[in-house]
Amino acid sequence: MKIALAQLNYHIGNFEANTQKIISAIKEAQQNGADLVVFAELCISGYPARDFLEFEEFIALCENSVKQIAAACRDIACIIGLPTVNSSPKGKDLYNSAYFIENGVVKTVVRKALLPNYDVFDEYRYFEPADQFTCIEYKGQKIALTICEDLWNNIDNPIYKTFPMDVLILQKPDLMINIAASPFAVNHDQERMQVLSYNAKKYALPLLYVNHVGAQTELIFDGGSMVYDANGQLFDELAYFEEQIAYYNIEKTGVKEASVRAEKPLTPNVSRMSKIEQIHQALILGIRDYFKKSGFNKATLGLSGGIDSALVCVLACESLGPENVMAVLLPSAFSSDHSIKDAEDLVKNLGCMSQTIAIKNITQSFETALEPQFAGLPFNIAEENIQSRSRAVILMAMCNKFGYILLNTSNKSEAAVGYGTLYGDMCGGISVLGDVYKTQVYELSNHINRNGEIIPQNSITKPPSAELRPGQKDSDSLPDYDILDRILKEYIENRKSSAAIIADGFKEDVVRKVLRLVNISEHKRYQTPPILRVSAKAFGMGRRMPIVGKYLS
Amino acid sequence: MKIALAQLNYHIGNFEANTQKIISAIKEAQQNGADLVVFAELCISGYPARDFLEFEEFIALCENSVKQIAAACRDIACIIGLPTVNSSPKGKDLYNSAYFIENGVVKTVVRKALLPNYDVFDEYRYFEPADQFTCIEYKGQKIALTICEDLWNNIDNPIYKTFPMDVLILQKPDLMINIAASPFAVNHDQERMQVLSYNAKKYALPLLYVNHVGAQTELIFDGGSMVYDANGQLFDELAYFEEQIAYYNIEKTGVKEASVRAEKPLTPNVSRMSKIEQIHQALILGIRDYFKKSGFNKATLGLSGGIDSALVCVLACESLGPENVMAVLLPSAFSSDHSIKDAEDLVKNLGCMSQTIAIKNITQSFETALEPQFAGLPFNIAEENIQSRSRAVILMAMCNKFGYILLNTSNKSEAAVGYGTLYGDMCGGISVLGDVYKTQVYELSNHINRNGEIIPQNSITKPPSAELRPGQKDSDSLPDYDILDRILKEYIENRKSSAAIIADGFKEDVVRKVLRLVNISEHKRYQTPPILRVSAKAFGMGRRMPIVGKYLS
Repeated sequence: MKIALAQLNYHIGNFEANTQKIISAIKEAQQNGADLVVFAELCISGYPARDFLEFEEFIALCENSVKQIAAACRDIACIIGLPTVNSSPKGKDLYNSAYFIENGVVKTVVRKALLPNYDVFDEYRYFEPADQFTCIEYKGQKIALTICEDLWNNIDNPIYKTFPMDVLILQKPDLMINIAASPFAVNHDQERMQVLSYNAKKYALPLLYVNHVGAQTELIFDGGSMVYDANGQLFDELAYFEEQIAYYNIEKTGVKEASVRAEKPLTPNVSRMSKIEQIHQALILGIRDYFKKSGFNKATLGLSGGIDSALVCVLACESLGPENVMAVLLPSAFSSDHSIKDAEDLVKNLGCMSQTIAIKNITQSFETALEPQFAGLPFNIAEENIQSRSRAVILMAMCNKFGYILLNTSNKSEAAVGYGTLYGDMCGGISVLGDVYKTQVYELSNHINRNGEIIPQNSITKPPSAELRPGQKDSDSLPDYDILDRILKEYIENRKSSAAIIADGFKEDVVRKVLRLVNISEHKRYQTPPILRVSAKAFGMGRRMPIVGKYLS
Repeated sequence: MKIALAQLNYHIGNFEANTQKIISAIKEAQQNGADLVVFAELCISGYPARDFLEFEEFIALCENSVKQIAAACRDIACIIGLPTVNSSPKGKDLYNSAYFIENGVVKTVVRKALLPNYDVFDEYRYFEPADQFTCIEYKGQKIALTICEDLWNNIDNPIYKTFPMDVLILQKPDLMINIAASPFAVNHDQERMQVLSYNAKKYALPLLYVNHVGAQTELIFDGGSMVYDANGQLFDELAYFEEQIAYYNIEKTGVKEASVRAEKPLTPNVSRMSKIEQIHQALILGIRDYFKKSGFNKATLGLSGGIDSALVCVLACESLGPENVMAVLLPSAFSSDHSIKDAEDLVKNLGCMSQTIAIKNITQSFETALEPQFAGLPFNIAEENIQSRSRAVILMAMCNKFGYILLNTSNKSEAAVGYGTLYGDMCGGISVLGDVYKTQVYELSNHINRNGEIIPQNSITKPPSAELRPGQKDSDSLPDYDILDRILKEYIENRKSSAAIIADGFKEDVVRKVLRLVNISEHKRYQTPPILRVSAKAFGMGRRMPIVGKYLS
């Protein structure tokens, strides 16, 4: 049996585009002689469709797409994912389902049993877990189809009490297929490989896995669909961060000896992408899809001469083309000459558009207007923030006048400790680096310069500064970033206690200060743009914290 | 048996304050001769503690509080709610539990089975559902203790497959107790009463119900703890929006005849608060607790002369005292004289502080700075938004200089259709009216004026306008609010399809325009302040929508 794995980029709620894309892939697979083409989890609706799923009309539109897809599915079968109605009077209203369609007819309905409801996932908000499991029978083979999390039965600390494959294996399937919507995070490809290999080996069956590719606001799906043989060995791996359709011949030679045979010799991705290049590619895809799926194509950003905005500018040019990127230099009285020069050098290196708009007269006009109120009071954070917010007003005016989307340039370290101005540098349609720690910003900048200077070396080497008062440096207010980022990672990613982090060798006063800063900054993070997620724990929908809470604050 | 119901205002993660409050109530109950004092669901941690629950240290601090409470619990018993560790290797890490503590010892642990995971609730993110149920035995009586949702077994469309009381009733309890964390929404008190009455009658047992009171950022707990007799009749109802401890004698006279006997005659709240007064009280409590629990006491807001900011100013004065409210008038070239006068009249009526800061020179300085970029282009939304954003910069500067929190004045109708300026009038620490439709803003304003003019009548009667260009009126861009709000309610609250709303008699083009505006404004709402929730479907954590989605847009 020749099976096509279709790793495609869907758009949430865009039924017309998703359906056409699926139908095109079916036709292509048919022309290539495939018997079955497999699409990803919830491909018809896009993932995550979130509370759109609570609209009956939205669910009806999914079934409407099925009709069109089924009509196109002649002399070939397909597996597609979609939300379906739970017609039982008990339980949640929907299932997270897959249809097996053969010759225009839905022959088998498979439902997801293990519903992730942690981090960015809210599946139990919508779906009833399945409690019945049946193999698909097709062309003399039995296929055990599961949906994403269904295979993620953590051995040491299982959070689910049932495992669909333990039921399906009793029906003696010949192969396993898993359709997924598994977003990117650094190291997550390794975790997927472990889980898939474990399952293939445990059940002694070949395993075909199809993931989404493409970004949906903050979630970036990296693709990397895979095929494992019945010994748990990786047989092939699809592209990362790109659409791809690949074909495999699966022959039935008995369960124990079931094998995966590729139509043409394929080699697994031997030179795996480095982690920093994965982040690089993820951010490019994240920006590109945010714009494309929002119907925009031009970006603007404030270019300070510092490393964060320089890096965002590079990524924007790589995603959208330099001709679609407008860098705005917004010097103030406290901007150093080298800052302006560094920004100008970057613009030259990239070939993007740029404008320079001095903010001195604007901040002066605010200070004059506030003179009666502020008379006699010293310069402090109020005046610092006026600068940052004046820049935001200009950038947003550029957006409103010319149809740009503003890119936010805050990094994860700043966002964590609240080192940023709400409605100032924390503005933007999408945060590019909000899940990238400052130390990773340096790493990624050096990576981008690996074949020659793109980001001016001075932006990388000079001490980081917000330049909101004379001689200001980040290190005046914060621990050095190599210390800060390690503490942040232990707290945010690993959820360690202050005691445990101190026991790791960090100074007690520093740890307590950092954790307190994180916890008193929730009100700021609540109002910031969605953040492209590249770690296992990003700020945003995957980390939900009280605002008026008092813990560690 | 004399039972005290303790309806208290907790603070998430503030273990010291919560524990002291619980211990004080135990002592008071003991002095009043109570045998048992009942506290609300998850009272030790506060509700909702959200991802704080993922920190082992946080859970350990809950158990630490239990030790202190148990030590104070001599010659009296208490029921307290807290998260506890699931020590089984399978399932989620925690339970949503209640401890029955008698004479310093935890005698019985009860766990919640039905875990709400819809709207604002995320309990399945953290908790494993209970599958074992045991009555508490105390002083010769058997108590069937359940936790909030455990009793919410919707008859027509149950979303859960198990019902704890169906198991507990087999153990022949003498009474039921339900501890809850049930946030306010208009009409929700009626739903609670229906559910409680239904259960009391169905199981023929008296039912004592204890709720939280007080606000936790957007969620406002209204109290209204209740006692039902075994016939399903309301016996007593505690205060709404206030802390209260009340006492009841429960005598065992056989299950069927079990009765609730109050120590002293009590009359149920016969003159129920009107719905608009409920919203009024909810918003006052919401503002007050947001400030108190954040450690702030002074508010500022931009006072335009329009009805929304006027209403917010009144509510702020009622919550915090007029001496803690700074109203800032920020007239522009397009502000009408009556706007300034209306704002000044309100300030006089309320006795709050005020300042007037003209923004003309500021907006002029932006326009001058942008002249090279904007030359030859017509005045449009870019210049309109510069005004709104300039005001925000001033208001935030006042906050930064003087320690105010900015109150957001957007209403739900505006927030729904994106009629507001991001980083402009959409700024603020908390949104007071973001769950109050414009038509309700009028209703509430008239209610506030019921005993004499507080809000100038002109603010109520003049046509609403953002005053960002000459002669601008809301009705230039939007349908009349009485039409708009009804369409919005059908779509947002009732999740009706466009076809169904059109079938209700609204014009097709208007319906399609409104729904499209709602769906293309998600990116704006994502970055707005938390919104005090007074309806069953507020924007924010209870309504989770894709940003790059294409549905109806």
